[in-house]
Amino acid sequence: MTKTGIIGATGYAGAELVRILSGHPDVKLTAITSRQYAGMKYDSIYSSMAGVVTLACEEFNMDSFCDKVDIIFIALPHKIPMEIVPGLIKRGKKVIDLSADFRFKDVLRYEKYYQPHTAKELLKEAVYGLCEIYFDEIKNASLIGNPGCYPTSVLLPLVPLLKENFIDINTIIADSKSGVSGAGRSLSLTAHFCEANESFKAYKVAGHRHCPEMEEILSAKAKKPVTITFVPHLVPMTRGMLTTTYVNLLKKTDSKEIRNCISSFYARHPFVRICPENQVPDTMHVRGTNYCDIGFKIDERNNRLIIISAIDNLVKGAAGQAVQNMNIMLGIDETRGLNNIPFAV
Amino acid sequence: MTKTGIIGATGYAGAELVRILSGHPDVKLTAITSRQYAGMKYDSIYSSMAGVVTLACEEFNMDSFCDKVDIIFIALPHKIPMEIVPGLIKRGKKVIDLSADFRFKDVLRYEKYYQPHTAKELLKEAVYGLCEIYFDEIKNASLIGNPGCYPTSVLLPLVPLLKENFIDINTIIADSKSGVSGAGRSLSLTAHFCEANESFKAYKVAGHRHCPEMEEILSAKAKKPVTITFVPHLVPMTRGMLTTTYVNLLKKTDSKEIRNCISSFYARHPFVRICPENQVPDTMHVRGTNYCDIGFKIDERNNRLIIISAIDNLVKGAAGQAVQNMNIMLGIDETRGLNNIPFAV
Amino acid sequence: MTKTGIIGATGYAGAELVRILSGHPDVKLTAITSRQYAGMKYDSIYSSMAGVVTLACEEFNMDSFCDKVDIIFIALPHKIPMEIVPGLIKRGKKVIDLSADFRFKDVLRYEKYYQPHTAKELLKEAVYGLCEIYFDEIKNASLIGNPGCYPTSVLLPLVPLLKENFIDINTIIADSKSGVSGAGRSLSLTAHFCEANESFKAYKVAGHRHCPEMEEILSAKAKKPVTITFVPHLVPMTRGMLTTTYVNLLKKTDSKEIRNCISSFYARHPFVRICPENQVPDTMHVRGTNYCDIGFKIDERNNRLIIISAIDNLVKGAAGQAVQNMNIMLGIDETRGLNNIPFAV
Amino acid sequence: MTKTGIIGATGYAGAELVRILSGHPDVKLTAITSRQYAGMKYDSIYSSMAGVVTLACEEFNMDSFCDKVDIIFIALPHKIPMEIVPGLIKRGKKVIDLSADFRFKDVLRYEKYYQPHTAKELLKEAVYGLCEIYFDEIKNASLIGNPGCYPTSVLLPLVPLLKENFIDINTIIADSKSGVSGAGRSLSLTAHFCEANESFKAYKVAGHRHCPEMEEILSAKAKKPVTITFVPHLVPMTRGMLTTTYVNLLKKTDSKEIRNCISSFYARHPFVRICPENQVPDTMHVRGTNYCDIGFKIDERNNRLIIISAIDNLVKGAAGQAVQNMNIMLGIDETRGLNNIPFAV
Repeated sequence: MTKTGIIGATGYAGAELVRILSGHPDVKLTAITSRQYAGMKYDSIYSSMAGVVTLACEEFNMDSFCDKVDIIFIALPHKIPMEIVPGLIKRGKKVIDLSADFRFKDVLRYEKYYQPHTAKELLKEAVYGLCEIYFDEIKNASLIGNPGCYPTSVLLPLVPLLKENFIDINTIIADSKSGVSGAGRSLSLTAHFCEANESFKAYKVAGHRHCPEMEEILSAKAKKPVTITFVPHLVPMTRGMLTTTYVNLLKKTDSKEIRNCISSFYARHPFVRICPENQVPDTMHVRGTNYCDIGFKIDERNNRLIIISAIDNLVKGAAGQAVQNMNIMLGIDETRGLNNIPFAV
Repeated sequence: MTKTGIIGATGYAGAELVRILSGHPDVKLTAITSRQYAGMKYDSIYSSMAGVVTLACEEFNMDSFCDKVDIIFIALPHKIPMEIVPGLIKRGKKVIDLSADFRFKDVLRYEKYYQPHTAKELLKEAVYGLCEIYFDEIKNASLIGNPGCYPTSVLLPLVPLLKENFIDINTIIADSKSGVSGAGRSLSLTAHFCEANESFKAYKVAGHRHCPEMEEILSAKAKKPVTITFVPHLVPMTRGMLTTTYVNLLKKTDSKEIRNCISSFYARHPFVRICPENQVPDTMHVRGTNYCDIGFKIDERNNRLIIISAIDNLVKGAAGQAVQNMNIMLGIDETRGLNNIPFAV
Repeated sequence: MTKTGIIGATGYAGAELVRILSGHPDVKLTAITSRQYAGMKYDSIYSSMAGVVTLACEEFNMDSFCDKVDIIFIALPHKIPMEIVPGLIKRGKKVIDLSADFRFKDVLRYEKYYQPHTAKELLKEAVYGLCEIYFDEIKNASLIGNPGCYPTSVLLPLVPLLKENFIDINTIIADSKSGVSGAGRSLSLTAHFCEANESFKAYKVAGHRHCPEMEEILSAKAKKPVTITFVPHLVPMTRGMLTTTYVNLLKKTDSKEIRNCISSFYARHPFVRICPENQVPDTMHVRGTNYCDIGFKIDERNNRLIIISAIDNLVKGAAGQAVQNMNIMLGIDETRGLNNIPFAV
Repeated sequence: MTKTGIIGATGYAGAELVRILSGHPDVKLTAITSRQYAGMKYDSIYSSMAGVVTLACEEFNMDSFCDKVDIIFIALPHKIPMEIVPGLIKRGKKVIDLSADFRFKDVLRYEKYYQPHTAKELLKEAVYGLCEIYFDEIKNASLIGNPGCYPTSVLLPLVPLLKENFIDINTIIADSKSGVSGAGRSLSLTAHFCEANESFKAYKVAGHRHCPEMEEILSAKAKKPVTITFVPHLVPMTRGMLTTTYVNLLKKTDSKEIRNCISSFYARHPFVRICPENQVPDTMHVRGTNYCDIGFKIDERNNRLIIISAIDNLVKGAAGQAVQNMNIMLGIDETRGLNNIPFAV
């Protein structure tokens, strides 16, 4: 059985990795690290898992950690992963990094929005882990830059439409809304219950780091530079992300053609679901699942396409997609360990 | 003291009218109607007002109601107001109608989205009660079509920019988010706690009736037909509405010019507040108040303006603006009865 | 593979049965009924299950339904089950009824709080499906009266303490708090988002029908009549139930003895978890799971025991326990199909 | 006009004081202090008050602060107030302290649960500011120990019943539930949105510092030592507190007698409202108000009284009661500045 490990297992994305990997039928979670909680059993940190996940957190040590695991997930803030990934790769490990450190091919873009990159040489071989789009590259990858949550929700519906030349890529506006867990478990006024509850607001308006990430992929697909307008908002709920994307259509078309374009692109990818005509995605429908639900409507008077996509920011937007990447790398069905039946409420 | 009455006092907008008028220093609430709760004292319907609002609801009767009141608010679903307003006007009453029935000058537009209009002759004299924009007309009006919540949040920031020729009116996209109280007190699955809680979704995508209402005003101001793209969403909170509007700029400009344009337009109108540089509106900041908070950011790479506006859908989006209209009609300070100090949380 | 069916599959308890049974490795869900949604595919009712649960709802027909299934779950309001259970039993089916109709041995008690019982003859053979307490009886049962959510949370910690004579059964006070899904999917002002959100209240104070249900079991265990005081409250959250029970201790004791009593009683029952010293249950820790978490504290100054128990009202409080009952009846591990790893948040 | 000041104005209780005092018709808020935000205008800390409260926070300086104000509110954590109150009193100021420092007559009790008291000499003259109970003492007080939120909700219904000898004071159990704002604005995992949302839990079970505070008052009223059992819980909402109190009745009685006892006691105190027969308090009914709503039910089978009381923890449980104390000290109507009409939702 494949042995997996998580570096940084106690944030919300880490906890979601723990949850999914602990229930995965084909792999075993054999090591987890945490600086803050080193030495503590996992279920003393998250009591929901009492008696279920009793593995202890350890301080990260390159050699001893690598001895225990085959595939490694990193759920740490950017900058730290690029310091440790070279060592992991050198030891022959496969790595799925949930930070931004290995998402960019264009190092200058990365350095403009983050900081100097200290493992540039790995960027070429790293694969952007948007599973349905880079499926073939992922199969043979050793290093995955797992996508951000916002880019996942924005790119999945756009890529097929871009490929089929339906949309004017100079007119993309993505208005995203995220649950509070996207801000992580760190303490901040933003995540204080009384400041988030009964509140709705935008943040980092046209200044969020996920924007260049989306633009790199869109530019690559369009084979020319693309800039978009992106505004994220904070919703008073724990999980869930919904993006409403507005884009001008390049030609007169109808719902059926749009639907065919997206449906056929994702025909063999069960985690992308297209809503029936006249229905729209709801974050509740994907809560706790790895689905990306997509709906759309043509605003005919303006020949503009309105696309709505919903994911669970912690699953398809983070840990779930990371495990999906692992499945693809292992050559097993991409849904393994991720096919829990969704809750109705 | 001016005597006021409310026809349809027990929905959420009606209850907000009751709250505001009961605390208003210059008027007296002397009659309220309700079909469902006729005969019941108001505080047996809303226990929060126990001992505070003890007026009883009555069945609406044209003559006896008109005997008791000078200014009348109507908080009923569209179609009913147009049946009773002619009688009220004939009896010399001033009327502020919160439904859509008297918001349109273009009766065909109304009839396309609602139903045949049975009091067309009153549309000419009716004034669209967007207080800061139609202040002078409101002063002398007898009949106010009180604006919808979405139009209020969309129009207030746009009108000054349109007037000063900053924006390309063919590129307006309004992405709105509303608390659940906007759906009213009627029972529906949409408003069921378990279906709205921990959920975020769009509804009536590019098909909401508030869209033609906005377009009528924008077209009037632009002196040519304007169509926009409008998508409303539902937020798991009780009160609050935030609209993110995207529009192309007609010329190179900067934050200072935009700020000056909006600020100077609203210089004498205290309920419109412009956020300081680098701050954004939050529905929590206007909860329970009649404010409309406005923030903006220029997306320079795309020469696009992003405007964010926040209101309390039940106050500036309904009952508060209705009372503001009354204040203007009475020639008293527009803030009377609406100047409660905002809550921090 | 055992074939299971659900009569009344579209309420929240029904939907939770659908979720659990669809993912159960040892049984197959072969028929579901709904009067309101007959003919519709399940995933057109609950979009979260799009592409996952595509079985269609049918009108209930005794013969055709019984042809398709071996074990039957009923998730309908009380009164209807007692009308159809005799027919199911006559056809040799095993039945797990989630209503109150088969929870009582004392028919007079049932009739006092509900209505005349029309299938009295089945009460003797019916087993009260509180799994950990009536495990042996359940094994051979044909008809299970699945416990109410409140009784489950109240009885699980009390029964071992009662058996070991720790507590004065005349002093039991149970103060329970439930999420809104306990009120079901039916429309009501109580479940309206704006009336439940930002609200906390009691309801049916000392008048809830689950009280006699608890008293029947406690009386049976104590071998004398027991009356308790029970007050349920409504919490602004979707799922979860927490009960704080107060009871006088019969003797001087300490935490260790209390812990031993409960722990040893549940030693072989994994769904009851005892919190570590100085920790307390949290409904979030059991959300979406079949666990009942129990914590306690001795108030030494008053020689009173404070017990806190948490369940997910839709799982251990309804559908999960129903499936656990089925597992026991089938002679398979009681955790089958119920051992999903809990979420951290 | 009386000049008021707030020491520690930027926590939630402080912000609520700012809100109420800024709208108070008879006093003027002339000075506010904050260590963290010294030099900043208040509306740059709480944007809801933009343009409304523009006073700047200052560092606390004894002499300059006292020069500006007549009546002083302190909203700081316990221990700090007792260091500065002697200086304020020496300068002839009237002081209302929201911490626990001046709530106790029995210094040993205080020191057992808090720390050594450094201003013991003031305890004798300090008055416990439970307004309706100690009205006459408050009139002439110079120093008020403003009650805790839990004690306010527990004591208001109990004192009249205790005085009239209805209840067995050895059997009091108070099960309280509080919104998250009770935990203050400080950052903590407990107040993290994702840990509080969709969660219900107890905390400090039989170990909360408000318990000795209640016991001191109850003992004083009963003229003998009283111990109670008290368990607080955390509700996923911002504001509101509901307490369910269980107590044995000393004699056979009925609802009418209980109602008369409480009603007549509070006949001249408008902030205590008794719910009509068969209705129960709801935190939503008192949100943003200074009311304490009280309901009750006799559990006749056990001759036990169940009392339910609801307050807004930040208003009647903190800042509102503090202002009510000020009103009484000033000899003005106790409702001045606190009589905003309640919201329906």
